[in-house]
Amino acid sequence: MVRSELVENIFRKKSFLCVGLDTDLSKIPSHLLKEKDPIFEFNKQIIDATEKYTVAYKPNIAFYEAEGTRGWDALQKTIEYLPKDCFSIADAKRGDIGNTSDMYAKAFFKTLSFDSVTVAPYMGQDSVSPFLAYEGKWAIVLALTSNSGSEDFEQKDLSIGGKLYEKVIQSVQTWGSPNNLMFVVGATKADKLAEIRKVCPDHFFLVPGVGAQGGSLEEVAKYGLNKDCGLLVNSSRGIIYASSRTDFKEKAALEAQKMQHEMSKYL
Amino acid sequence: MVRSELVENIFRKKSFLCVGLDTDLSKIPSHLLKEKDPIFEFNKQIIDATEKYTVAYKPNIAFYEAEGTRGWDALQKTIEYLPKDCFSIADAKRGDIGNTSDMYAKAFFKTLSFDSVTVAPYMGQDSVSPFLAYEGKWAIVLALTSNSGSEDFEQKDLSIGGKLYEKVIQSVQTWGSPNNLMFVVGATKADKLAEIRKVCPDHFFLVPGVGAQGGSLEEVAKYGLNKDCGLLVNSSRGIIYASSRTDFKEKAALEAQKMQHEMSKYL
Repeated sequence: MVRSELVENIFRKKSFLCVGLDTDLSKIPSHLLKEKDPIFEFNKQIIDATEKYTVAYKPNIAFYEAEGTRGWDALQKTIEYLPKDCFSIADAKRGDIGNTSDMYAKAFFKTLSFDSVTVAPYMGQDSVSPFLAYEGKWAIVLALTSNSGSEDFEQKDLSIGGKLYEKVIQSVQTWGSPNNLMFVVGATKADKLAEIRKVCPDHFFLVPGVGAQGGSLEEVAKYGLNKDCGLLVNSSRGIIYASSRTDFKEKAALEAQKMQHEMSKYL
Repeated sequence: MVRSELVENIFRKKSFLCVGLDTDLSKIPSHLLKEKDPIFEFNKQIIDATEKYTVAYKPNIAFYEAEGTRGWDALQKTIEYLPKDCFSIADAKRGDIGNTSDMYAKAFFKTLSFDSVTVAPYMGQDSVSPFLAYEGKWAIVLALTSNSGSEDFEQKDLSIGGKLYEKVIQSVQTWGSPNNLMFVVGATKADKLAEIRKVCPDHFFLVPGVGAQGGSLEEVAKYGLNKDCGLLVNSSRGIIYASSRTDFKEKAALEAQKMQHEMSKYL
């Protein structure tokens, strides 16, 4: 999906919500476990319930890999089922030497036809570039993440001034454009968003950590919005596990609608 | 596999060779393509040909994911086929927030029963710890990699002294022990191995980059060996694609034997 289409979807649906599909067999409603493919069945129903309020879906690849072949199979069916007007994100945190990153790009862009993949920057340019070589596809590079471990390295000071994640944003920006490159910026660091937005005015940010991880949507919008919106705010557990009973679809729709409603005020 | 068993295998087989299974349908001998599962068939024959000279196998997960479900299926069969006296490495470069790293650990240690996984450190401690929580399993954390992109961040100076990869080694060491933690140290940086060995005397290093990427085995051994050997040196393309014809098994065995022979002199 190209940028203009993404932006058009956001303003038409008045939403920058991304629903994270962290589908876990031990957490989905138990009545689904008797289905032939419970993972896909859960995703399908969540998608049906939330697509009106949502511009993006983000399967968390770890949850599918943990189930082996049947997980991979469910992932394939899920990506095929996604509505055409929703941006798809493989939350995979990949990154390896050039020829291996080529294969990861092939896995997510060709075999599975995702619009984007989250990419870890540690190994540098040749580990990121293969994800930028596909027309209409995106790399979403980890900058400042929402977990406690972000203090271990990301927030370390570099002698050249600034912190590692700032250096990452500064360098990685030069490897792609706002049309094929986004950054992950954790919502629990909303106070830092304003600074990051200053050095990175045009890029979209994928913002996890709203909801279960404690970030505030209002603050994210306040510091992160740009003229094209420039934000995709993800909620996983808060939506998909809003209920563990047969009413999970209705409850998921309700939570998604609540977030969409709040977002519409900020747009 | 616990450390004592790994060390015993190394000295018994007089080898610290790891064979990388970067199995690519466009590169394997064409006569295998008519097999029902060409990826597994290739791996099986490579394993049969090289196991005498080898203490570890390292499937490069990207190559399996690029083939979707059938790739994942071939990976599962490969890990089940691996000889019990060979250490298995899922070269996956994973790393995510805690609850997601939990799922990756489950994917590689339980669903697929690998001995170890390569892990990217960018997101810090909670992204690495879940891989250290399994008895007899290992996290192999990226420190200094062998690709050109290692200059972008890994080799940047930090104001607190030293480079990012040094800070990574220093911090990550405190999260695990030499019994469940290794580091990736690229062979093309053999001159830095001596320094890293000084701050990290006991850990095993997984060393890629010998062969196709230009690293020297002699230098790696000179600067990297410790009393328990402390090295697993990987070669992928140099062994598995030594020939693209029907003699690929014999040629792979020959290349593996050559490396094993050189290693036996250093042990």
